[in-house]
Amino acid sequence: MLPYVFGVDIGGTAIKLGAFRTDGTLLEKWQIPTRVEDGGSHVLPDALDALRGWMARNQVTWSQVEGVGMGVPGPVKLDGTVLRCINLNWGEQSLPAVMKALEPGIAKFRVTNDVNAATLGELWKGAASSCNSAVMVTLGTGIGCGVVADGAIMSGSEGAAGEIGHFCVDRESTVRCKCGKYGCLEQYCSATGLLRCAKLALAQQPERPTALREKKQLTAKQVCDAARAGDALALELLDELGEKLGWALTAVASTVNPEMFLIGGGLSKAGDVLLQPIAASYRKYAFHAFRDTAFALAELGNDAGIYGCAKMVLG
Amino acid sequence: MLPYVFGVDIGGTAIKLGAFRTDGTLLEKWQIPTRVEDGGSHVLPDALDALRGWMARNQVTWSQVEGVGMGVPGPVKLDGTVLRCINLNWGEQSLPAVMKALEPGIAKFRVTNDVNAATLGELWKGAASSCNSAVMVTLGTGIGCGVVADGAIMSGSEGAAGEIGHFCVDRESTVRCKCGKYGCLEQYCSATGLLRCAKLALAQQPERPTALREKKQLTAKQVCDAARAGDALALELLDELGEKLGWALTAVASTVNPEMFLIGGGLSKAGDVLLQPIAASYRKYAFHAFRDTAFALAELGNDAGIYGCAKMVLG
Repeated sequence: MLPYVFGVDIGGTAIKLGAFRTDGTLLEKWQIPTRVEDGGSHVLPDALDALRGWMARNQVTWSQVEGVGMGVPGPVKLDGTVLRCINLNWGEQSLPAVMKALEPGIAKFRVTNDVNAATLGELWKGAASSCNSAVMVTLGTGIGCGVVADGAIMSGSEGAAGEIGHFCVDRESTVRCKCGKYGCLEQYCSATGLLRCAKLALAQQPERPTALREKKQLTAKQVCDAARAGDALALELLDELGEKLGWALTAVASTVNPEMFLIGGGLSKAGDVLLQPIAASYRKYAFHAFRDTAFALAELGNDAGIYGCAKMVLG
Repeated sequence: MLPYVFGVDIGGTAIKLGAFRTDGTLLEKWQIPTRVEDGGSHVLPDALDALRGWMARNQVTWSQVEGVGMGVPGPVKLDGTVLRCINLNWGEQSLPAVMKALEPGIAKFRVTNDVNAATLGELWKGAASSCNSAVMVTLGTGIGCGVVADGAIMSGSEGAAGEIGHFCVDRESTVRCKCGKYGCLEQYCSATGLLRCAKLALAQQPERPTALREKKQLTAKQVCDAARAGDALALELLDELGEKLGWALTAVASTVNPEMFLIGGGLSKAGDVLLQPIAASYRKYAFHAFRDTAFALAELGNDAGIYGCAKMVLG
């Protein structure tokens, strides 16, 4: 194997880059802004220029690079076709073909969805490094989910494996999700969803004393902080989030039976006060064959993506 | 590739065997009874004797056989370890090791769960032969489910991938499933579940005219037949089954995003009157990225298993 490998994690505001030795050592990580103008046509050339800059500074040539792994914020099919990346202004394109045209020197190119890459990163160097399979759920503005089953990243026929954020967890709901449907998991269990539920609870229980009522502009983080400080309503809100998410994850386990579930994303900074209700609900609803699946918080944070991208190349 | 390959589908009452050319031609299929006494210790020797008999009759030696693929009625891990097969009286054992000891002449041995094998069979020679991935749900006494995603059979860390029969579709249910939990999919959508719901509906609506009331000993098949004949209550019962199953399958699609869903098992003989409500509910609840996933009835029936077993060997 050649001595170097690059991981490139493309987000809507920043491109994160990592230069690794193929033994897994991270040599350097850095980031550049994502220029999404002109139909996102600068994104890949900018990323390549960033890699070339590092190579020039370190006197490395493409003949010494095993390959480049990339994560992008949108659905990616098994053959590397990106169907769309709204945040990058990208339409459908074959990323392996585009990259080959931009830089023929790249020996091996691999691409997947950003959450899939992060999940693989956690399996390689993070919270799931003892495992062969894991499902990571990221709770932020929305819900992301990466599935690595039997050692392989799941892409799905439309690149939509792991799109659990819009699984309907309440078939009676009349609150419309931005996707157009009702009762989506994301409306309850993302940071946005938690905040929505918190405001609803405050309005429905006007007499109930809670630290949440004192906040000028309530945030999901404040709900988590209040729960950690023992606020009863905040704890109830996280219990309700855990009830829905843990139950939904039994459906995921029913399908791919992973060794571990990882909880990541901004909301996961809440730690155990978030993780425990999710795991408890999971164990309540799970079929006995997979009731003991491990639960853990993701560990690599924003670096998970570059690790996973590099790992895709290493196989 | 060597000229022959065998598929061996082991069930609780019969072992189905298929002798194939490696070009995919089925040369002969036959079955023998499953002898489950003595801890199921006769099952594999009996299956091997059946294969040896065919080989002797056809003057074939192991040196001409590419391999043997096997399906068993229980969870199988990726390494071929069977955790238990209640219907065969088997405890945990490594089937590749046992088979190697019984017949060292087998060049390649592959084993998976019987429903996984049947799903792969449908992908190879049946209703999903145009696809690279499919999820098959079999509706019989219980619910089985096989998952082939991105071209590979999903095993799961405990061999429990595809165990959707005990996904809780009603968290408020107080009716206990034989698994010990409440509100399991199987309690509503298996043949047994459909019959349970039919009896409940008859008791709850004693005045309602329906052909179902005339049956001495109502069966799930009679419910399906009545629906095909236009009986309003029977149609409602299949709609309700479809509502729950189609919705549950959106969770499966959220995880692995297959190209096609196949409905098999005894209940699937009902045809469109069963398939349509399932597909309609799926499309109502599915996220737009996979709303158009194809639905079809399984085609190979009891032969799906031997086809899939042979295909595992062929890769």
